[in-house]
Amino acid sequence: MYYSTHDLNDTIVALATPAGVGAIGVIRLSGAAAIRICNQVFKGKNLEEQDSHTIHFGTIREKDNRIIDEVLVSLFVAPKSYTRENVVEVSCHGSSYIIQQLIQLFIKQGARMAQPGEFTLRAFLNGQMDLSQAEAVADLIAASSASSHTLALQQMRGGFSDEIQKLRQQLLDFASLIELELDFSEEDVEFADRSELKKLVITIQTYLHDLIQSFDLGNAIKNGINTVIAGRPNAGKSTLLNALLNEERAIVSDIAGTTRDTIEEVLNINGIQFRLIDTAGIREASDQIEAMGVEKTMEKISQSALLIYVFDVIQMQPEEVRQDLAKLMKPGVHLLVIANKMDLNPYTKFEHYFEVGSRKSEVGSQDIDKMENVSSAKNPSDFELPTSDLSLAISKSQWIPVSALEKMNIPFLKEKLYESVISEQVQLDSTVVSNVRHYEALRKASESLDDVLHAMDSGITSDFVAMDIRRALAYLGEITGEISTDDLLGNIFGKFCIGK
Amino acid sequence: MYYSTHDLNDTIVALATPAGVGAIGVIRLSGAAAIRICNQVFKGKNLEEQDSHTIHFGTIREKDNRIIDEVLVSLFVAPKSYTRENVVEVSCHGSSYIIQQLIQLFIKQGARMAQPGEFTLRAFLNGQMDLSQAEAVADLIAASSASSHTLALQQMRGGFSDEIQKLRQQLLDFASLIELELDFSEEDVEFADRSELKKLVITIQTYLHDLIQSFDLGNAIKNGINTVIAGRPNAGKSTLLNALLNEERAIVSDIAGTTRDTIEEVLNINGIQFRLIDTAGIREASDQIEAMGVEKTMEKISQSALLIYVFDVIQMQPEEVRQDLAKLMKPGVHLLVIANKMDLNPYTKFEHYFEVGSRKSEVGSQDIDKMENVSSAKNPSDFELPTSDLSLAISKSQWIPVSALEKMNIPFLKEKLYESVISEQVQLDSTVVSNVRHYEALRKASESLDDVLHAMDSGITSDFVAMDIRRALAYLGEITGEISTDDLLGNIFGKFCIGK
Repeated sequence: MYYSTHDLNDTIVALATPAGVGAIGVIRLSGAAAIRICNQVFKGKNLEEQDSHTIHFGTIREKDNRIIDEVLVSLFVAPKSYTRENVVEVSCHGSSYIIQQLIQLFIKQGARMAQPGEFTLRAFLNGQMDLSQAEAVADLIAASSASSHTLALQQMRGGFSDEIQKLRQQLLDFASLIELELDFSEEDVEFADRSELKKLVITIQTYLHDLIQSFDLGNAIKNGINTVIAGRPNAGKSTLLNALLNEERAIVSDIAGTTRDTIEEVLNINGIQFRLIDTAGIREASDQIEAMGVEKTMEKISQSALLIYVFDVIQMQPEEVRQDLAKLMKPGVHLLVIANKMDLNPYTKFEHYFEVGSRKSEVGSQDIDKMENVSSAKNPSDFELPTSDLSLAISKSQWIPVSALEKMNIPFLKEKLYESVISEQVQLDSTVVSNVRHYEALRKASESLDDVLHAMDSGITSDFVAMDIRRALAYLGEITGEISTDDLLGNIFGKFCIGK
Repeated sequence: MYYSTHDLNDTIVALATPAGVGAIGVIRLSGAAAIRICNQVFKGKNLEEQDSHTIHFGTIREKDNRIIDEVLVSLFVAPKSYTRENVVEVSCHGSSYIIQQLIQLFIKQGARMAQPGEFTLRAFLNGQMDLSQAEAVADLIAASSASSHTLALQQMRGGFSDEIQKLRQQLLDFASLIELELDFSEEDVEFADRSELKKLVITIQTYLHDLIQSFDLGNAIKNGINTVIAGRPNAGKSTLLNALLNEERAIVSDIAGTTRDTIEEVLNINGIQFRLIDTAGIREASDQIEAMGVEKTMEKISQSALLIYVFDVIQMQPEEVRQDLAKLMKPGVHLLVIANKMDLNPYTKFEHYFEVGSRKSEVGSQDIDKMENVSSAKNPSDFELPTSDLSLAISKSQWIPVSALEKMNIPFLKEKLYESVISEQVQLDSTVVSNVRHYEALRKASESLDDVLHAMDSGITSDFVAMDIRRALAYLGEITGEISTDDLLGNIFGKFCIGK
C-alpha cells in the first residue's frame, strides 16, 4: 500500500522547485537526519551547530572533494518547520545536472527520495495541519484565479475545519454519554440531555447545510465551468466570444517567467472561470450544424456544464432554432439561448423580445419581461422542450437578446451565465466548500444526523441513536483527518507533486 | 542601449526558479530598497530590524489586507549577498497565480522587473565577481555533463582570471614605465628593463598558448560534438549506436523532477558529449544513400563536426565504399570509417585489416598497423580522398574494424572518436578555456604580444612597443571585464535568463 508504513524515521529528499531552467533550484530534505546528512557533504560552517531559520553559504562536495556546487543552505530545526521535523533547503544553481547530482549525493548519504506529497503528509501526521488544510496546499498551488486562490488559502489557513472540529467534539461528548447510558441500560438512567442533544444536532445540521449548499459555487470556482458555444455559421459566435472576452483578455498579464502552461479562452465572471471550449467551428465560420458538426459538437456538449446557443435573428426562423435546440440539448447541461444581431434590424420577427426604446442601452431581465408577444407564431412557447427533464426550460426569460458586434447586453448575458450555474446565493467571503471529498463527507454526516433526529423523534432505542451519532462523527472526522486510512491518505497525497 | 544606464539605484525583482508547477517558487529582489519594499507588504516580524542570513515566516498582503500567500522570507543584508546589495528571497507556494500576484505587488511597491541576467550583472558591477566568473554562472546552469559542469564551476570560482589579472598587472607596470620613458624621450632614459619585459612577455605568451590550445577541448566539452552516423541500409548503424550507447544509457538516471528537457542520443567519451544526430535512417534501415538520403544526410553532415561512416565488410566492395565517401565527405568535418560485421567472416576481402589472432579480443591501433595488404585491390590507398584539403586522410589506420553485434573493438572506436576531435593533449584538471569570447581575446592578446616581441627584437621605437602592450592589455582586460562596454555587457547578460 502506498503510505502503509508512514515511516517517519526516514529522511526524505526531493526537488521543491519546478524542473527546467531557472536561476536557482531548491532541494528539500526533511527528517531527523536532514541536517546531519547535509552537513556530511557541506563545506562551510558546521550546520549541526547553527540556529533554526538561518542561511549558510558553502560548497557541497563529493567524497573525492570534487565540488558539485556553491549553495545556500537554509536550516529549519524541528519543530519549527513545515513538517515539524528537521528541514534543510539547499538553494543551488538551477541546472538539472547539479540538481540530479545533489539529490543522488543526499541519497548516498542516507536520505531517500520523497513520495509525492510526502512533505505535506508528514506535516499532517505530525499535527502541523489537519487533512483539509493539507489538501488545500495542493489546491493553492493549482489555483489559477483570484477566487480559487482565495478559497484555497482560506481552507489552508483553517477554513471550516476548526468549526467542524469544535462541533464534532460536542457531538462526541454526547455520544460518550449515551454509550455510558447503555452500560447502565438496566437502570434506565439518562446522562445525555435529549433536548440539548437535539439542539446541538440541529445547530450542526444548519451549519452543514450551509456548507453543502456552498459546494456548487466552490466546485465551480475550483474547477471552472466547461462551456460550449454553438450555432450555425455566421450566427456571430466569434464576435460574441470576443465581446465576452473583451475586458478579460487585458487581465491576462504577461510577466516573464510566470506564463501559464495553457492559455485557453477563459472568461471570468464573479470569480468563476468559464472555459470556452474550442470545438471546431467555435472560432471559425465552418461548423455547419446541419451537415457534419453535430456529432463532434454533441461530444463537447456532453463534457460541458453549459451550452450557449447563438442564432442570427435576421436569418433564422423560430422553427430552425427549435430544430437546432432539439438536437443540441442534453440533460444536465444548462442552456442559454442568445438572439444575436439585434442591432441590425429590431423590427424583425423577433422584435417583441427587444424593447425598442432601450436598443442602444443595455437590456436587463426586466426589459425582457416587459416584452409582449405580438403574434402566436413568434411566441416563445413554440420553442417547447424536446424532453421534460431538462433542468432549464426555454422561456422568453432565458432568451437573451444581444448584439455581439455592438456589445449590447453583454453585461446582462454575463449575469445570466453566472446565474445559470450558481443557483444558490452564496457569498465568497463566507465559508465555501470546494473539495468533493469534503462535500461527500458533509452530505453523509448530514444524512446520519437526519437519522439521529428521526430516531430520537420516533423513540428508537438509544443504541441506534448512538450508532447514528457515531456514523456522523466518523464522516466529520474524515474531513479533518481525525479519522483516516492509509488508502485515503495515499489517495490524497498521491496526487501531490513530488517535493511538496 | 540595453544596459546603458546601469541604474543600480533601482530595486529589481524576478522569479528565480523555473516557471511551471512545483512545490515552491522563489522570487528574488535586489537593491537598496529590497528589504523595505518586502517589509511594506509583509505581516510578521519587522524585516528591517532582522539580521542578515535569517529566515522569517509570515504573510504577504495586498493593501486591502487580502492575503496573497504565506511565505518564508530570506534576508541578505548588503554587502553579504549575491549582488552585494540588499537581497530578499521570498519563498512562496509554487503557483503561477501567486507568483504573478507577488511580483505585481512588489512592482507596485517600487521594484521594477529585472532584465535578463541583471542580478549577475550587478554582482559583476559591484565587484562580487569578474566578468569571466559571471559568464560561468550561465555556463554552470546550462551544464549537462560532468565535464562541462567541472569546467563552468572552475571558471566561476576564479579559473584563470586570477592568473590573467596578475600577469596583466605586471605588464601594465611595464607599460607605465615605457610610457614614462616617452615623456622623457629627449633624455634617452630607460625605466623599463627590456630583458625583464621580454621575459615577462614570454611567460605570458606561454601561459596564453596553453589556454588557447585548451579551447578545442573546452569548446567540445561545453558544446558537445555533433556527430552523424551514415551508411547504407543494413550496414549496422543501429547496432553500432546501441553498442556505443550501451553503458551510457544506464548513466542517464531517472530521478523524478530532474528530467532533462531533451534527451538526445548522447555518447559521453572522457567528458565530451558526442550528440549522435538523428537523421532519418540513422535508427532505421531505410536510408538508401544512393536513392534519396544523400541530400538530407549531407545537410546534417554540414552541421556536424564528425561523420561516422559504417559499412558492411561482407556486402560492400571497396569501390562502393569509395563512392559513398566521395559523396559524403565534407571539408572541415572529421571522418571515421567503420568496417562493421567483422565477426561474420574475418576471411573476407577485408581480412587483412583484422588480425585473426586478436579476433575475439579488442583490436587496437597497433594491431591495425600490423595488418598487411594482401592484394593491391584491397589496399586502403585505393580509397584516395576525392579532395586534398580534407583534414583527415583515409588511411588504413583510420579504418576501424568492429563488430557492433559482438561489441568487438568498441572501446578502441571510442578512443578514436575522442582523438578525432581533440587533437591536443589537454588535461581537464588543468585550466581549460571554453568560452569563445575568451578564446578570441586570448588569441588577439597573444598576437599583440607577438608584435611586442617583434618590435623589441627589431629595435622599433618604444612608442610602438607601448602601443602593442596597451593592445594586449586591452584584450586581457576584456576577459575579466576590467575593460568592458555596455554593448559587451548587454551581449553577455542578455543571454542569461531573467532572475539570474
